[in-house]
Amino acid sequence: MKAVTLNVEGMSCGHCVAAIEGSLKKELGINAKVDLAAKTVSVEFDEANVTVEKIKDVIEDQGYDVN
Amino acid sequence: MKAVTLNVEGMSCGHCVAAIEGSLKKELGINAKVDLAAKTVSVEFDEANVTVEKIKDVIEDQGYDVN
Repeated sequence: MKAVTLNVEGMSCGHCVAAIEGSLKKELGINAKVDLAAKTVSVEFDEANVTVEKIKDVIEDQGYDVN
Repeated sequence: MKAVTLNVEGMSCGHCVAAIEGSLKKELGINAKVDLAAKTVSVEFDEANVTVEKIKDVIEDQGYDVN
C-alpha cells in the first residue's frame, strides 16, 4: 500500500468531504481522508490497481483543484 | 405570495446551495434562491401553506444558522 497526501483547493464544508471521500471510494475503491483546515486529501492505495493520476482525476471531476 | 430574504450563516459552496434549495423544494414545495456571497436565502411562498418558521427549521436542519 502506498500513502499519499495531496494538496487540494476549494474544499469548504462537509458536503465537499463527502463528495471527495465518497467518489474515491465508489470509483476507485480506496479510502480517503479529507482535512478541510489543512486543505489536504490523504489516501492509501494499492499501486497495482490505482495511480495518483487517477486519484487526481476523480478529485478534479468533483470540481476541485489538485496542486 | 410572500417574498422573504433570510440571512444564513455557514453556506460555503455549491453543495450547500443544492442542499438548501433542494430541501426547501422537497419538504415545503417552495422555490428558494441562495446567494453565497450575500449569505442570503430568498424564498417566495404562499402564507396559507408555509410559515417563515417552517422555512427556518428546514434550513437549520441542513446544518446552517438562520439569523
